[in-house]
Formats: sequence, C-alpha cells, structure tokens
Amino acid sequence: MRKTLVTGLLLSLTGAVFAQVPSPTNLGRNPYPQVGADRSVTFRVNAPDATALTLSLGKDYPMVKDEKGFWTVTTEPQVEGFHYYSLKVGGLTFNDPSVHSYFGTGRDCSAVEVPEDAEASAFYTPRQGVPQGAVRSVRYYSKACGEYRRMYVYTPAGYEQNPDKRYPVLYLQHGGGEDETGWIYQGFADVILDNLVAEGKAVPMIIVMVSGVARGADGNDAFEAMVTEDVIPLVDKRFRTISDRDHRAVAGLSWGAKQAYDLGLGYRDLFSWIGGFSGIIVIGEFRVRPAGYEDPEKFAAAYDGIFSDPDWFNRNYHLLFIGNGEAEGAHLQGMSNLLKERGINNVFYQSPRTAHEWLTWRRCLKEFAQRLFK
Amino acid sequence: MRKTLVTGLLLSLTGAVFAQVPSPTNLGRNPYPQVGADRSVTFRVNAPDATALTLSLGKDYPMVKDEKGFWTVTTEPQVEGFHYYSLKVGGLTFNDPSVHSYFGTGRDCSAVEVPEDAEASAFYTPRQGVPQGAVRSVRYYSKACGEYRRMYVYTPAGYEQNPDKRYPVLYLQHGGGEDETGWIYQGFADVILDNLVAEGKAVPMIIVMVSGVARGADGNDAFEAMVTEDVIPLVDKRFRTISDRDHRAVAGLSWGAKQAYDLGLGYRDLFSWIGGFSGIIVIGEFRVRPAGYEDPEKFAAAYDGIFSDPDWFNRNYHLLFIGNGEAEGAHLQGMSNLLKERGINNVFYQSPRTAHEWLTWRRCLKEFAQRLFK
Repeated sequence: MRKTLVTGLLLSLTGAVFAQVPSPTNLGRNPYPQVGADRSVTFRVNAPDATALTLSLGKDYPMVKDEKGFWTVTTEPQVEGFHYYSLKVGGLTFNDPSVHSYFGTGRDCSAVEVPEDAEASAFYTPRQGVPQGAVRSVRYYSKACGEYRRMYVYTPAGYEQNPDKRYPVLYLQHGGGEDETGWIYQGFADVILDNLVAEGKAVPMIIVMVSGVARGADGNDAFEAMVTEDVIPLVDKRFRTISDRDHRAVAGLSWGAKQAYDLGLGYRDLFSWIGGFSGIIVIGEFRVRPAGYEDPEKFAAAYDGIFSDPDWFNRNYHLLFIGNGEAEGAHLQGMSNLLKERGINNVFYQSPRTAHEWLTWRRCLKEFAQRLFK
Repeated sequence: MRKTLVTGLLLSLTGAVFAQVPSPTNLGRNPYPQVGADRSVTFRVNAPDATALTLSLGKDYPMVKDEKGFWTVTTEPQVEGFHYYSLKVGGLTFNDPSVHSYFGTGRDCSAVEVPEDAEASAFYTPRQGVPQGAVRSVRYYSKACGEYRRMYVYTPAGYEQNPDKRYPVLYLQHGGGEDETGWIYQGFADVILDNLVAEGKAVPMIIVMVSGVARGADGNDAFEAMVTEDVIPLVDKRFRTISDRDHRAVAGLSWGAKQAYDLGLGYRDLFSWIGGFSGIIVIGEFRVRPAGYEDPEKFAAAYDGIFSDPDWFNRNYHLLFIGNGEAEGAHLQGMSNLLKERGINNVFYQSPRTAHEWLTWRRCLKEFAQRLFK
C-alpha cells in the first residue's frame, strides 16, 4: 500500500506546521509514528505481554509501556527525510506493523519520513495536471546470474503516444541492502522526472532500475556482466532507446555509486554520463585519501587509464556528477576537488543538512537529471 | 526483492522431490523457512534473549530455543500453496525477517510457499521463450477518494509493438487486507496470462488492479465511484482498450469477489463478464442459504432485478464464473447450483485440495481467463 505514501506525504506536509503529524509512511490512518514540530518522532506499539521493547533509529531507544500495554518512545529531533528503523525484542530485529515496509537493510524494513515543508518537497510530490510517465515491472532472465529477475523501467509521459520517438536511457542503482524498488518507493524517481520534464528542466528519458545484488553460478559478483550482457541489450530491444554512449547514463547511490563508477568508467564505449551520490571512486584502497589519489601513477592507471589524459576524458565524458549530503562530511567535496586538481572536470552538489539517506538522493537525482543529455 | 520469488520457486520445485527445500519466499539464500517432503514447514529465527516466541500459521505453534539462541518449530503438513504467517512475542504480531513480505492481513506480512510439483505449477512459472507482457505501476488522482493512489496495469506481450491494436480489459480485485500488488506478487497474474496467451488458450487482454480499500472524504466506501468514475475513464484514456461492456470483465477474490459481483451485476452497462473466486453473491443476508436465495421475491429484486429475467441475463452476460478451493467447503458449489435452478447460467470451478489462499486464486484466474472475450 506504498501508493498511499504520496498521499500521506501531502497530508503531512500540509499539516507540518502543526504540532504532531503522522509519518507519511504510516499504514492507512495509523496515528503513529508521529513527527513533532521539532522533528522528534514518537513511536507507539501495542505489546501488552512484552517485557522489553527497543526502538532502533540511528541509535537504540528503550521503549516504555503504559498501563494499556502500549509501548512508546520519543526520539531526539531527526534530520528531515526518510529514515529506516526497526523494533528489537530479545535480540530479534523486526518491523513496526503500523508502517509500510521498504526494501532496505537487506529486508523489508520499516521507515519513517520526517517531512520538510511543502515548497522544499514539491519536486518529489505528484501534482495534478503534470503528465505522468509509467513505471514498468519487467521480469527477465539473466544469463549472467542464471535466474529470473525483476527490473523497474520508467518511461516518460508521452512514450506511448509517440510510437516513433526514441529516448536516452539512465541506468540508476540503489544502495547496499536495497533493491530495484528503492528509487521508486523511497526515491520517487518517477515523480521527480515527471515534474522536471513538465517544467522543461529535464529531457524526457527512460530510467532502468535493476537490483545490484547479482551473483553468477560460481557465486562471484556478476553485476557488470548482467548489466552489460543481459540488461542493456534487453532494454535496447524492448524499449525505444537511443542506443549509443552519448545517450546512455549511469548513476547510483552509496554502494550503487561505486557500481555506477565501475560501469561508467570501466565501460567507456557504453556510457558518457556518470553520477555518483554518496559514494566514492575507488582508486587504490577504499578511501579517497591518501590511497591512489595521492599517487600519480595509481591515479593514471585507474580504470584502464581513464584519467591518464584529462583532455580526452573531458572531451569524451559529458558529465561526471558527484553528490552527497551535508551531514555525511567533506570527503566527497575533497574527491571532487582532487579530480579537478588533476584536470578531471566534474560537478559537485551538496544536499543541505541531510545525511546518508533518501532525501539526499532525491535531491541528487533532481540536480543530476537536469544536466543529462543536453 | 520479491523478484527472486520466481527464481526461488523454480529452485524449490526442482528440489521438491528431495527432503527439505527452502520456501520460494525466502530472502536471498536463507535456508529457513524450509518445506519438508510431507509439506510440513520448519521455521527458524535467531532471538537469543527472547523468553518466548510463537509462530502463527493457521494456528499458533510455540517455538523452542536451542543453546545458540535459535528458535525453531516444525508445523503440521500444510496444503500446497501460499500461506501468510506471523511471529508473535509478548502480544505483538510481526514479520519473520528471513522472508519477503507481501501486503496481506492489512500490513506487509510474511508468507511461505509450499510448492506443488513442477508440472502443476508450470502455468504460473515463467518460461524462457514465452513473450512477456508488462506490469505498469500507475499513480493516479482519485476524485472519489480525494487522494493519489497507485494501480497496477498489465499489458500483454505485443502491446507496444502493435500501436494500432486495441484490447479488452479485465478489472481484477484482491482480497480483504490485501492491495493492488497481490495479484502480481502473490498471484503471478502476469505470468499466468503470458503463458496462456503464448499457448493460444487466452485472448491477449489488459488487466487493471486497484486497491479495493477506498474511502471518500466523508469516510464512506467510495470503491464503486472510484472504479466507475476515476479508474475506468483513466484506463480507457491512457491505454488502448476496447471500451464497451462486451470487452470489459470484472473479477475478484474473497472480499474482492463481493466487490466484483457488486460492480458486474450493479453496473450492467459497464460489464458483461464476471468472475468471483471464493466469495458469494450477497442476496439478503451475508449467507448463501437460506437468506435471499430461498425467497423468490428477494432473489428477483437483487441488484435492481438483474436475475428477474433469466433469459435476458443469459443473453446479455457472456460469463458468470464461480470458483473456490476444495478445502473451503461446498457453499459456493451450492450457490452455483441455486443460480442454475433459477435459470441463471454460470460456470463453477473447484480447485483440488486448496484452501482460502492464493493457489486457489491462481488456478481460478487460469480457468476464468481462458473463457474471457471469446
């Protein structure tokens, strides 16, 4: 029933000026979790016979039981945005039955949305009169993985009304512990693109979302083989794409940013637009500094020498976009600067206040999508 | 990650001849829940500090903790098919974190699939070489409900390759406590239709799935207004439908069967094909016998007199399909007979062995879909 999240979001945003509002992620009309004016969140769970209950949202909060058997707790003020959380009992981590679940942390996980104001959230809020694209759920057989899998494919408004028009494609990856549903249910990628296209700020494009968890029969990571040998050919066959590198982008968040960099920089014949949200380009060890970035030889050797000739890179790659959330720290700003020092053009975007969560990535997608295919 | 369910299903069916197989609903490669050769199910959950844990699958089973903190229990043999279940602790009902969740029982709920053999399950198992339709997730604004909602729309293979072809439409409802995702994730409606169409057993059709939980601003049930005033006009506008009653069907399961009968019999200008799976046509009280069925006047008055002229009904309705599971009892067979005694043509189908669950409804859809629009 995640469909109601959007409604809930609207309701909550409308009500956000008042004291307490239900989280947009609540099932039906459940009043809890409830977000306070100070962005603290109050949780309530009915477990009359439980002897202890813990809420886990960033940190653990012991819950307190009232005489009716309801366990409650109010957290510290939270950063606005989307936060996964869990309940814990006796060493078992599980869902809050009063909210929708979202695939994250490796399972269907509870989440709370701490709303920002209506103006700030307008870009990921559906509006009447805005032509809608469609999100398709497509089952496909992956030879690389030896199994049937599901991908989500967003086609922009007008796709079906213009049977002769072809479109550029963005391959968009979720983060660790998530799956191909994340960019729709947590990220609202379809709403963001519908709104940007309606405002003339983004080019109509197809967005392909696949699960980044991909193992071959041998148990090894088959992600790149799956995308390059199974997914891209299928998408170019089944959808009206412009199937060249100038019209193919790849982006991802966190772990998915690493996968996006590996695809975008590792397969230069396939991609020419790259976006990494809250993730690093790994050179040498899995850190920005000191590692490969300090060593001209390692840097020049990375990704088969992609950075060895900055002029070539800047001529051949239309966009290298690096984004993160302010609360995540300065390491990606540093990475962007290091790349620029070495002559590699890139665009850096920082989402005000937000942490390593979906509001950061909704904003990153908004900034990235407006620069694509232009 | 429900996408992996299909894979799991294949693996399990292949392995079903052996002793213990993981449920196809398990997340990733979790070994538990595990289905035995006798169709008993063994559950295992890690909760080292819990003092008690109960498994609820049809009935409550107390779980037993081993020295490592794993709680386990093996159920009685289960009927093959898809079964919701929950864990209980201290009066709190919640999900098993080791399986996918499915929207049922009013929340994202755990479920186990007790596989049947490969031959029996072939009709809802994806096959390579079978042309695939697509399932779209469409956000829409419902005036009747005053909110944004999400519907699923299945378009058959070839829909996009034949921009001039128009298709009949089946409106298909889920059961109580479920939502518009049920017929895809629990029911495999898309796979069933892909397979039937590929075998030439069903006419290519569009299937529209909406949530049956619909309230207006006044809090009253707005389902029929939503379907007839918001959904059908939107579908006929956005998709290439044949928009007349001869090419529009409605069906549903359980509570959704009641909704399907109310739409199909109550809106005779809109529908001419009706399917009810595990649900009754309510005449008088909410029982088949004695109620209205025993009273000629009540019977003739039902649904604005739809049954008052059997010849008219039989000429104007192409199909009234009634299905259920053998384990549900004989009441729907009785309802089918009562209708026939009164001259109302109908087709009755009974799913061998199965109960009030999704395997019954997958089989009902298979039988129903083959009779549609012919």
